[in-house]
Amino acid sequence: MVIDNNFYMTLALREAWKYQGLTYPNPAVGCTIVAESGEILAVEAHHKAGESHAEVNALKAAYFKLTNDSYILSLQNSANIHTHLLSNHHGIFENAKLYTTLEPCSHQGKTPSCANLIAELGIKEVYVGSNDRNKKAANGSLILSMSNCTVYSEIMKAECDALLLPFEKILESNFVFFKWAQRLNGTTDAGIISSESSRKQVHAMRDVCDLLIIGGGTVRADRPTLDARLVDGKAPDILVLSRKQDFDKMIPLFSVKGRKVFIEDNLERLREYKNIMIEGGSQMYALTRNVVNYYLCYIAPSLGGEQSIKFGDDKFEFLNVDKESEDIIVWMKRRI
Amino acid sequence: MVIDNNFYMTLALREAWKYQGLTYPNPAVGCTIVAESGEILAVEAHHKAGESHAEVNALKAAYFKLTNDSYILSLQNSANIHTHLLSNHHGIFENAKLYTTLEPCSHQGKTPSCANLIAELGIKEVYVGSNDRNKKAANGSLILSMSNCTVYSEIMKAECDALLLPFEKILESNFVFFKWAQRLNGTTDAGIISSESSRKQVHAMRDVCDLLIIGGGTVRADRPTLDARLVDGKAPDILVLSRKQDFDKMIPLFSVKGRKVFIEDNLERLREYKNIMIEGGSQMYALTRNVVNYYLCYIAPSLGGEQSIKFGDDKFEFLNVDKESEDIIVWMKRRI
Repeated sequence: MVIDNNFYMTLALREAWKYQGLTYPNPAVGCTIVAESGEILAVEAHHKAGESHAEVNALKAAYFKLTNDSYILSLQNSANIHTHLLSNHHGIFENAKLYTTLEPCSHQGKTPSCANLIAELGIKEVYVGSNDRNKKAANGSLILSMSNCTVYSEIMKAECDALLLPFEKILESNFVFFKWAQRLNGTTDAGIISSESSRKQVHAMRDVCDLLIIGGGTVRADRPTLDARLVDGKAPDILVLSRKQDFDKMIPLFSVKGRKVFIEDNLERLREYKNIMIEGGSQMYALTRNVVNYYLCYIAPSLGGEQSIKFGDDKFEFLNVDKESEDIIVWMKRRI
Repeated sequence: MVIDNNFYMTLALREAWKYQGLTYPNPAVGCTIVAESGEILAVEAHHKAGESHAEVNALKAAYFKLTNDSYILSLQNSANIHTHLLSNHHGIFENAKLYTTLEPCSHQGKTPSCANLIAELGIKEVYVGSNDRNKKAANGSLILSMSNCTVYSEIMKAECDALLLPFEKILESNFVFFKWAQRLNGTTDAGIISSESSRKQVHAMRDVCDLLIIGGGTVRADRPTLDARLVDGKAPDILVLSRKQDFDKMIPLFSVKGRKVFIEDNLERLREYKNIMIEGGSQMYALTRNVVNYYLCYIAPSLGGEQSIKFGDDKFEFLNVDKESEDIIVWMKRRI
C-alpha cells in the first residue's frame, strides 16, 4: 500500500461516506490532519447540519491529541471550538497538512469560516478534493492562498466529487436516492433484514429527508409508520405512489403528526422537495429509475427469503462500501 | 475515527486479507510500521509463499521511505533484503513501532527469521495480533523480548485469529473454502459475472490450491477447464462430486496435464489434501456445508440473470469486505 496524499484523502473520504444522507442541507465532508512529523492526528467528518464542519471536528481531535487539553472535548458548539483553538493553539499546527474532500468554507454560516480558522492556525499545506461551487461558501482556497498557505486542488477529484454529488444536486434541484435492504442472496421478503444499527441509520436519514416515497403495494402489505422513531427524529412527508386512492387510513403512516401524505400516480411532487428518499422493491425501482441519482443498499449477512429483487439488467458503480457494522452498506450509482 | 494501535493493526489486517487464499502453505499476514515521529512508513502483506514475509515487505518499504535508497527496491530475494537492511539501517528503525497480525517467525525457513531481523534493527515496540502455534516458527515474541524489545500481544486478537484460521486449519488437517460469484441481486446464471481482476484472483487461488471441488452438473453444463491460465499457474487436482461417472471426456478439465481428476459421490478424498477450494452453486453449497470453513463471495456491480442462489437460511459473519477492484470481495464464515 502506498502511503501518500491519496492515502490520507482516502481516509477522509471513507469517514465522510459514513455520514452520507445524514448531513442535509450540508454536504458530507471528511478531513484528515497530518502533523509535521507525519503522524495522523485526526480523521473526522461532518456529522449533521448545525454541528461542526469536518475540518473543525478534525482540528478539535488533533488539538486534543497534541495538547491533551481535555477542555476542548467538552465543547460542542462550533464557534466555541474555533475560539478555544485560536486562543490556545500556540503554533502547534504550523507545519501540519490538512486534507479535506471539499474546499474549506469561506463564509460565516451557522459556524464561522473554516478557511479563516485554518489560515489563522498557520497550517501551510491544504489538500482539497472538490471545489465548492456553492457561491455562499466558495473561495476558501483563495483565503488560504492569500494567507501563506499552499493549496493543492483536485486531489482524488473524481472520488470527492462523487461524495459531493448529493449536495450539488440539491443546490441545482434535488437529490433522490433509492434505498433497499436485502440478504446476501438478494431477497427482500420474510421479515426484518438489516441490523438494528442499519435501521437506526435509515431512521436518521428519514429525519433529514423532506420527502419519502413509497409504493402503494408496500403501504397496503406492511402497514408502515415510516417515521424516525429509532432516533427520535421528525417524520418526513410521504408520497405514496399509487393509482388507487383507497387506503385504509388506519395504517399508521397516515396519522403521524406534522406530516403531509400525498397519494399520487406520478412524480411531479418531487419538484417541491430537496432531499428525497425512496424505499421500495422491484416495482418502485422501475417506476423511479429515471429520477434516482444514487442507490443505497444494506446487505445483511444472511440467506433465506423467497422473493428476490428484480431490477432488470442495470449495471452500477460501487461508490463506497462500508463494513463498520454487521451489514455491508453500499452507495452506488447506475451506469448510464 | 480514533487513531490508535487498533487503527494501525486494522490497516495491516485489511492489506493481509487481500492475499487470503494466495499465500498457501504460508499464512496471510499483514504488517504496519510507524516511525518514532508517528508517521506511517509502510503497510504491507505477505503475497506468496517463497516471497518475503509481511514484516520484510514492510521494512523494505519503510527503509526506502526513510532513506530513498532505491537499491533495495531492486531486491526481491528475502535473504538479500535482510542483508541489505542489516548493513545499511544505521539505526533508523530504533524507535519505530511494528504492528503485525501474526507473531514474527523465529525460524530460518525459505527466508531468514523475521524476529531476529526486527531485533537487530533495534525496533523497540512490536504489536502482535495472533500468536504463532506453528511450532517451527513460534517463539518470535520471546526472541524479541530477550532483545530489549517490548512485545504487546493479542492486539485485535479475534480479527487476527480470523485472518489466520485458514493456516491453522491447514496445520491441523485442511482448509476448505467455498467460492462463488454473484450479481448484486444474488443471481449466478447468464454468463460471466465478475470482473477480469476478480477472475484473475480466482485463478491465482487455483494455482495454490491442491484440490478443487466442483459439481457434476456444472461440469456437464459449463464444460470448464478449471485451470489457472489467467495467471500462468498450475491447475489443481479436481474432485467432480457426482453419483454418475459418465462424463464426456472431451470436456477440457479432463485433459489438463499433470492433474488428477476424481469423480466421486462423497468427500472422503478431502483427507488427502490441504488447501481446498469449492466452486459451485446452491446444490454444492448444501452438499459441502459441513466441511466448509470459510466462504468467499465476489459481488459484481450489476443486476440481471434469473437463477438466484438458494443456500437455505444460514447466517454469516462478514470477516473482511474489500472494494479495491470493481467487485466487492467478501470473506465470511457461517454462524453456527
